[in-house]
Amino acid sequence: MNPALRRFVQETDFTPETNVWTTNVWLSRPDLVAAEQLLLVRATMEPGRSHPFHKHPTREEIIYVIEGRAEQWVEREHRVLKPGEIAHIPVNTVHGTWNPFGERLVFLAILAPAKAAPPDIVDVSEEEPWRSLRR
Amino acid sequence: MNPALRRFVQETDFTPETNVWTTNVWLSRPDLVAAEQLLLVRATMEPGRSHPFHKHPTREEIIYVIEGRAEQWVEREHRVLKPGEIAHIPVNTVHGTWNPFGERLVFLAILAPAKAAPPDIVDVSEEEPWRSLRR
Repeated sequence: MNPALRRFVQETDFTPETNVWTTNVWLSRPDLVAAEQLLLVRATMEPGRSHPFHKHPTREEIIYVIEGRAEQWVEREHRVLKPGEIAHIPVNTVHGTWNPFGERLVFLAILAPAKAAPPDIVDVSEEEPWRSLRR
Repeated sequence: MNPALRRFVQETDFTPETNVWTTNVWLSRPDLVAAEQLLLVRATMEPGRSHPFHKHPTREEIIYVIEGRAEQWVEREHRVLKPGEIAHIPVNTVHGTWNPFGERLVFLAILAPAKAAPPDIVDVSEEEPWRSLRR
């Protein structure tokens, strides 16, 4: 379907993709819907997995927990987020998500704007202070 | 707490508010967090309630169903959305949400940008074709 005309993304449209951190189902992206402002992806992170410290130079982000718990860091602060709780990550702010718990974590990553200059992501997990922060 | 410095919104921060359509918990808004791009609210709609046809002249929106089912309209198209499914609503596009089902509906409304020119919302539910469309 022409993404400019698609107004609904339902179960039959879901196409899971797996990366090194999570399994993802994209729900809003310019190749799916007429997204100018909003990117939305639902991510599943298995126990023991993480998405270490990184930043998005051109987008603001919210992490919303759906199921399980997230050890969520934003710069040097962290919280254990339960379902219904969020982290707000200003543009170009270092953050990371860990699942050291015994159950899978499902969360939404919401980013804006949808159309923004590259790079989408900058990994800082091997740079100080981030490399040593969580130890 | 100074919203410019708040990075997490958790259960102890929740302050429900009720309007004529839903009971809401705001999760991202400029008076809560450093939101420039992203508004996020979790809405609970009881059986038999609705938010009839309206539009947001300056913001794009996503409806994400958490619990229950939504009869979701975007212009003249509608779907019954289940948990995990979405509607994408381009800027200034007429839409509405109904809960004619027997269980409560919980959904996220995600809007961007956070900071935008007024009005936030324009009610078109008494204008044709919207007034007669769902009958």
